Amino acid sequence: METVDTTERLRQLRGLMKQQKVDIYIVPSEDAHSSEYIAPTDARREYISGFSGSAGTAVITLDKAALATDGRYFNQASKQLDKNWELLKQGLQDVPTWQEWAVEQAAPGDDKPGLTVGVDPTTITAPEGRKLGEKIKKKGGKELVAVSDNMVDWVWSKQKPARPNEPAKVLGQEYAGKRYQDKIEELRKELDKKKAAGFVVSMLDEIAWLFNLRGNDIPYNPVFFSYAVVTPTTVTLYIDESKLGENAKAHLMGVTIRPYNEIFSDIAAMVKEQTAANGSKDAASTPKRKYLISTKASWALSRALGGEENVEEVRSLIGDAKAIKNSTELEGMRQCHIRDGAALIEYFAWLEDQLIAKEATLDEVEGADKLESIRSKHDHFVGLSFDTISSTGPNAAVIHYKPEPGNCSTIDPKQIYLCDSGAQYFDGTTDTTRTLHFGEPTAMERESYTLVLKGHIALDLAVFPKGTSGFALDTLARQHLWAHGLEYRHGTGHGVGSYLNVHEGPIGIGTRIQYSEVPLSVGNVISNEPGYYEDGKFGIRIENIIMVKEVETKHKFGEKPYLGFEHVTMVPMCRKLIDLEMLTAVEKEWLNSYHQQVLEKTKSFFTEDELSRVWLERECEPY
Amino acid sequence: METVDTTERLRQLRGLMKQQKVDIYIVPSEDAHSSEYIAPTDARREYISGFSGSAGTAVITLDKAALATDGRYFNQASKQLDKNWELLKQGLQDVPTWQEWAVEQAAPGDDKPGLTVGVDPTTITAPEGRKLGEKIKKKGGKELVAVSDNMVDWVWSKQKPARPNEPAKVLGQEYAGKRYQDKIEELRKELDKKKAAGFVVSMLDEIAWLFNLRGNDIPYNPVFFSYAVVTPTTVTLYIDESKLGENAKAHLMGVTIRPYNEIFSDIAAMVKEQTAANGSKDAASTPKRKYLISTKASWALSRALGGEENVEEVRSLIGDAKAIKNSTELEGMRQCHIRDGAALIEYFAWLEDQLIAKEATLDEVEGADKLESIRSKHDHFVGLSFDTISSTGPNAAVIHYKPEPGNCSTIDPKQIYLCDSGAQYFDGTTDTTRTLHFGEPTAMERESYTLVLKGHIALDLAVFPKGTSGFALDTLARQHLWAHGLEYRHGTGHGVGSYLNVHEGPIGIGTRIQYSEVPLSVGNVISNEPGYYEDGKFGIRIENIIMVKEVETKHKFGEKPYLGFEHVTMVPMCRKLIDLEMLTAVEKEWLNSYHQQVLEKTKSFFTEDELSRVWLERECEPY
Repeated sequence: METVDTTERLRQLRGLMKQQKVDIYIVPSEDAHSSEYIAPTDARREYISGFSGSAGTAVITLDKAALATDGRYFNQASKQLDKNWELLKQGLQDVPTWQEWAVEQAAPGDDKPGLTVGVDPTTITAPEGRKLGEKIKKKGGKELVAVSDNMVDWVWSKQKPARPNEPAKVLGQEYAGKRYQDKIEELRKELDKKKAAGFVVSMLDEIAWLFNLRGNDIPYNPVFFSYAVVTPTTVTLYIDESKLGENAKAHLMGVTIRPYNEIFSDIAAMVKEQTAANGSKDAASTPKRKYLISTKASWALSRALGGEENVEEVRSLIGDAKAIKNSTELEGMRQCHIRDGAALIEYFAWLEDQLIAKEATLDEVEGADKLESIRSKHDHFVGLSFDTISSTGPNAAVIHYKPEPGNCSTIDPKQIYLCDSGAQYFDGTTDTTRTLHFGEPTAMERESYTLVLKGHIALDLAVFPKGTSGFALDTLARQHLWAHGLEYRHGTGHGVGSYLNVHEGPIGIGTRIQYSEVPLSVGNVISNEPGYYEDGKFGIRIENIIMVKEVETKHKFGEKPYLGFEHVTMVPMCRKLIDLEMLTAVEKEWLNSYHQQVLEKTKSFFTEDELSRVWLERECEPY
Repeated sequence: METVDTTERLRQLRGLMKQQKVDIYIVPSEDAHSSEYIAPTDARREYISGFSGSAGTAVITLDKAALATDGRYFNQASKQLDKNWELLKQGLQDVPTWQEWAVEQAAPGDDKPGLTVGVDPTTITAPEGRKLGEKIKKKGGKELVAVSDNMVDWVWSKQKPARPNEPAKVLGQEYAGKRYQDKIEELRKELDKKKAAGFVVSMLDEIAWLFNLRGNDIPYNPVFFSYAVVTPTTVTLYIDESKLGENAKAHLMGVTIRPYNEIFSDIAAMVKEQTAANGSKDAASTPKRKYLISTKASWALSRALGGEENVEEVRSLIGDAKAIKNSTELEGMRQCHIRDGAALIEYFAWLEDQLIAKEATLDEVEGADKLESIRSKHDHFVGLSFDTISSTGPNAAVIHYKPEPGNCSTIDPKQIYLCDSGAQYFDGTTDTTRTLHFGEPTAMERESYTLVLKGHIALDLAVFPKGTSGFALDTLARQHLWAHGLEYRHGTGHGVGSYLNVHEGPIGIGTRIQYSEVPLSVGNVISNEPGYYEDGKFGIRIENIIMVKEVETKHKFGEKPYLGFEHVTMVPMCRKLIDLEMLTAVEKEWLNSYHQQVLEKTKSFFTEDELSRVWLERECEPY
């Protein structure tokens, strides 16, 4: 984590700002698709500020510069920012949000004229752009302008990495489970219900899902740079043609292929045509149909479509459909989690043997690398689904810890070891956390592990009527920790893609209010990951992937289906960390049954690997 | 439930509508204060439509009339409405809401001109009025006009009951626990924080609470017709002076008393004055302060204040303060619930003796009357806090059942008996439901009673960090029913006033999204009332009043207080309906400890009442 001298970069940027008559320039973290992970070419906020964390926004005026980020990154940002930058610690009292700070700069008061704020409209969502523009005007600033050419790109110019151009390949029917043509037909039915002119698709995982294609343009996420437009009669994929091999082209027969960069002019022309066509008909008899975009689509897209008059921002129809996995995807999830579980079992057995029997010295990155090499031997392995969190002792308390080579800790067998990792396989995406101890845990470590486990089991066993949201279930995972005065400061579960992004909406289990808006449905795949963290001491998290299914209940009030979960993650819990006295009979039964399943489903991987088999059998022994 | 011939009433109303140039007239159920219960003089919707249920809206055009109500009242409404009326069953698919129906009438289409919709602006809230007005214009209607004189009142004229004019009496410090002057000072601090010009108080229970006064203008709710305005320098109570005795007048020293009806002209003048004062100063240096009103304040109030430009609609500051009871109020709640519990114990013992030993025939109203007579003997008794639900067998499945004299069932000792009742005492308000069986319950009755009890206990025992809302806790009460495929279609808990309304906001336990916006706080008083209902067979509900308190936990993560509940209701659970096999050790322990408390706190009432004492001791015997 070194400090970058940004003086020259800022000098050049300010020169451009003056040319473009922009007094304040905003540089968000996002790419044009609101991606959670971005390609290096889109890391403009990092380039201009020197701050490399995943979340943050830079605001640059002609004589000041501020970088806003959240609590996870206060330390890192203060180390990485040079003297040109002010750090806005978001979430602290009396610290302005970056929007407030930008508006303050734009409205200097004392009869001074309001200033102009600029932003690349592809890097901010339409609702964010609208809200910010309104605030600037309301508080006395001049206006928010969309600056089409990204000014950081100009400064960056030659050093800037190229946009990735990896191939987009067809995902076979044996993995996708549904023809893309059928997905498009279903989408059209939804468009018809909503009386919409079409859907302009901007999220990369939604496009990959819709067309049954996978790419490699963004680390960990098997997506490719593209847009798509689906109308009642047309399907257009905006993608650089060089990314499509013969196979993909044949697969996409009937889909119009247009260059990635043409989306904006094309949709502007499309809207113009529609308006002209409407003008020629009886306007009263055909109410105007709007184009749908997701609430995460960029301001640039909304502008190209002519703004609010022609656009309706919705929770993405594709996001909703994608979250309900078909039976092929569900079976793929089961299968890839068995292989992934075998990899984790082999790794944990190896790690214990190294640390205890062999008394080897291993650091966190060496552990993570070993795990990756074990995973990569398995069928259908593509790559990791996110940076492995391999963390010892106090590092396990850092919820988003990422060990860096040469700058990480040695794994201490006398302390807690937390490992949160996952992979991409052709048949699914995995995400598993296990917390282990190779020596003698403290009473507090056992107590808190057992409370986390009780919450994990309570959620796993939950039965609920159709219509219940992940917001309503969150408390089940927290109740036992709460009873002891303990708590964790993160959500309990996130949606998981099928050989797609490891985090996907719209469902989730937690206290975010948007989780209350989407009921859990049969086919949803979601994580169950309560935890507990003691700063400077240790961290605990237990994460399985669970799938929503209909369950049999003794009664069936209101003839409504009752739902529950099926767990697909197959890795034992840590015996040393469980305080049996704290478990109820039902919880013990759950544990025995779970370990029985883990043993049965994974033991065949270890017929010739005694070390792993012995470890597995020991950990799965019934209570 | 008889049908009223509304032909002549509608004819007269339509004559007035033509005079006033109103094409469509809306008659909501509400009085000018958004009261849950209303005085007979405000029952305009009932008068014009003949439908006497508590919820519903009438919409009258020059040739049609529609009455909208919800599922609870479909039967009653179809019996009570005469041929002039169309019933809009709210909540059913393809049935328009009353707003949609009204807008349809106002925008007849086919080049016909849009029509005018009228409403008495005191009977609709400001946000509702605004939304409806926008919809009418958007869909092609003319406009929504505020018709100051209520047209139903004109038709009703001579037969209309007078507005009640019961005295408003001082509630002593020994019950209120806090001087009203201190409440006003605290309110002013909040106004200052919000940089508000003042608060116009419209809810009757908020005014009663603020001034430590209680009245008798509305059945079951000890409130009085009034408004109040609190600014940083003034306090004005709008009330008919005849309601105030010498005591009350002395108590209100320093408060300006103005006639109830003058509120609208007074606040209009107040705003005018403020605007004039602002004009004379440097406008830029003093940003305009707005008047706060509750989101439940009437459109008439908002209009009198000059509308959105001068008004901010907020969750009532007084509602928030009132929901946090002081220690005197909490102690009053404990004490009145002990007396009230003793009354219920005496009643249940008597009822069992009558039905079983004496084989008497008793109907539901006779039961309710006996209970009221027992309650009324107790200290500080004022009256009931709502209509007693005394229901046998299938009637218990009707969630809002109200037995009517001469039109109710005989209590069947072979069936479930559900009794939901409460009273007003000077020191608090009670609300208790117990479900009993005097014979041999069926297996399903015992199973569902025990599941309801398990949910009740889970909520009672909940521990949660400060900041948790009643939305997050709701699932705890439902989880055991869900596991058996059972469910109840009502909330789990509502706030309860201190010798005030038995239902009060803003807190609640349930799936209404607004409950997620208000965390539970120490001093909140709320009901815990899960249930289960089988149409045509039986109903179960177990309701205690619980109070939020800080609890000791083994640990204290984040140095945040952890909260839990104290139950104040003191009536045994029904032994016959409990399936002990289904209870965990913790639940049994809870039950024994609860019965021990009930016994200790109430037995002194029965030193000379052997029947009740024997019943109480039998029901409280430890398991």
